[in-house]
Amino acid sequence: MRKLAILGFGTVGSGTVESFYHHKEKIAKRIGFTPDIKYILDIRDFPESPYKDKVIHDFSVIENDPEIAVAAEVMGGLNPALDFTKRLLSKGISVVTSNKELVARHGAELLALAKANNCSYLFEASTGGAIPIIRTLTDSLSSNYIYKIQGILNGTTNFILTKMREEGLPFNEALKLAQDLGYAEKDPTADISGADSARKISILASIAFGKHIKPEWVKTVGIDRVTSEDMAYAESLGAKIKLVAVASKESDSDKIFITVAPYIVCNNHQLAHVDDVFNAVMVDASGAGRLMFYGQGAGKLPTASAVLADITAALTETNSSDNVWEECEEDIIIKTDGEEGLPILE
Amino acid sequence: MRKLAILGFGTVGSGTVESFYHHKEKIAKRIGFTPDIKYILDIRDFPESPYKDKVIHDFSVIENDPEIAVAAEVMGGLNPALDFTKRLLSKGISVVTSNKELVARHGAELLALAKANNCSYLFEASTGGAIPIIRTLTDSLSSNYIYKIQGILNGTTNFILTKMREEGLPFNEALKLAQDLGYAEKDPTADISGADSARKISILASIAFGKHIKPEWVKTVGIDRVTSEDMAYAESLGAKIKLVAVASKESDSDKIFITVAPYIVCNNHQLAHVDDVFNAVMVDASGAGRLMFYGQGAGKLPTASAVLADITAALTETNSSDNVWEECEEDIIIKTDGEEGLPILE
Repeated sequence: MRKLAILGFGTVGSGTVESFYHHKEKIAKRIGFTPDIKYILDIRDFPESPYKDKVIHDFSVIENDPEIAVAAEVMGGLNPALDFTKRLLSKGISVVTSNKELVARHGAELLALAKANNCSYLFEASTGGAIPIIRTLTDSLSSNYIYKIQGILNGTTNFILTKMREEGLPFNEALKLAQDLGYAEKDPTADISGADSARKISILASIAFGKHIKPEWVKTVGIDRVTSEDMAYAESLGAKIKLVAVASKESDSDKIFITVAPYIVCNNHQLAHVDDVFNAVMVDASGAGRLMFYGQGAGKLPTASAVLADITAALTETNSSDNVWEECEEDIIIKTDGEEGLPILE
Repeated sequence: MRKLAILGFGTVGSGTVESFYHHKEKIAKRIGFTPDIKYILDIRDFPESPYKDKVIHDFSVIENDPEIAVAAEVMGGLNPALDFTKRLLSKGISVVTSNKELVARHGAELLALAKANNCSYLFEASTGGAIPIIRTLTDSLSSNYIYKIQGILNGTTNFILTKMREEGLPFNEALKLAQDLGYAEKDPTADISGADSARKISILASIAFGKHIKPEWVKTVGIDRVTSEDMAYAESLGAKIKLVAVASKESDSDKIFITVAPYIVCNNHQLAHVDDVFNAVMVDASGAGRLMFYGQGAGKLPTASAVLADITAALTETNSSDNVWEECEEDIIIKTDGEEGLPILE
């Protein structure tokens, strides 16, 4: 009852498997025993892979194997990830995931299901890649009230904005460069529109405020209308333009402000120095004050690092499911009018 | 068997007690029950304090009370902190601490004692104040090999260097300003000489490399000989001077490089933008890549935030003592010759 299953053998899945075997000795030292991956679930075969003998196609083998303690859901998408996750948690098998869409949409329900079945639903890899921001919010800041979160949560758009500024490229050329380098997908809509950042800030806000903030409630503005003139204007102010996700809560109200938009970020703000594909999350908390966490927000190995941290936690901690999100309605969100021009980050 | 004791009612101790009661509801939600502070140990009385009825003078009351699950040792100094910590851990009472001197000198012994008695010895508050760097190294990066740590670990010296640069003050005037503002002590030797940073980097290196690196092995250069000319020279390079603690390990050797010294830090390095009393720790890891953590490295409430995070962890986790440091000899340290001029941070 200490074996692992990996659901999905794409980029994150193969990174997780490779990284697991590369760091197996250190993981064993940390948790006090040597874990192993028993199954890798995928619809494809991988005849060239050294792990080909672990590959299976039938999910029910995993859910019915009493040896499986933890499954890493690194398939992405809502279906069948949601169904698989529910079935595993219902059997008391902990699930760790990189699936930000699933966490953002169904987090409250899945966390409650984990708690009811005395297992864990962990998602460090869903937001900020290798940056341990989820654990920091749930554990290290568990004795703080969180006032505000400001994050650069999407590496693709940060790369594009960096190239527009540093090399004077117009948006379309910077996007093409990002695509050529593999930082942006062929259809870059989810990144460019801010939808990816909206999912991530909804996850961070839900943890920070203990209520399930849905991604569709996040007022979201993308970067596709940022012009070279905007760049020059920011420069003239001693500032940069960054796509920033913001969530905050007034101490005397239960209302939450949450948005994703291109912001003017002055150079004396820590987030101004987060360039290229890097991500960063700044947190203002009652005891700790202002904290910032910086690192690679995406990529095979950084994401695998976060998945493995969660696997290790799920294997060692008896109850990691004290992260509970209350269901709430959209009227909790502060509605603001559209503003003229770019807002300035405070 | 779920009560707390606070050893020492000075700045950190009173911050911990106040912050505990301020955040009690959130802590209870996190851990699933409502904990309470039963004793505050100090040699003084505090007749004006709302917590005066909890103050006791006799340590043996704490060690002999079976209700005490966790003690926070926030006294500082080696004695009687070492004796008290050993006696508590020997009885299976977890100890959390802000005492960097004790951790740096006796960490291996105290961690082993905690493990042998199935309790925890946790010290998030010993290094980096509110920055959750200890938990990040032990938990979030438990499936990474750490190559290098670079940190601005002392707020006093960072404030002095910031004022020398921004306001053109000579060292002595910047030091006096820091003293007037309460950032530097009357006897600022431990900060200025780099000794405080040396203790902290020895703690971080011991966690990262799993071997107890003693603070006296750290080649340490202070900031008292940094001149206005050095400042101008750095400026001319597009750089700043920062007191940086560095620890690194070559992947093909067991030897460790560890130092504290004023470094020239180029403006494209993340640590160049860590100013005033702020601290930051940069970590290069096998899977996660480069990460940085930034926040308040000292102060009553930020330090209390870290102490409370450890208290919460000690109350909820069954075994937090997988952080084990092997004893080792000084020949593990790479000896370098003294260099001419200031080194450049890479």
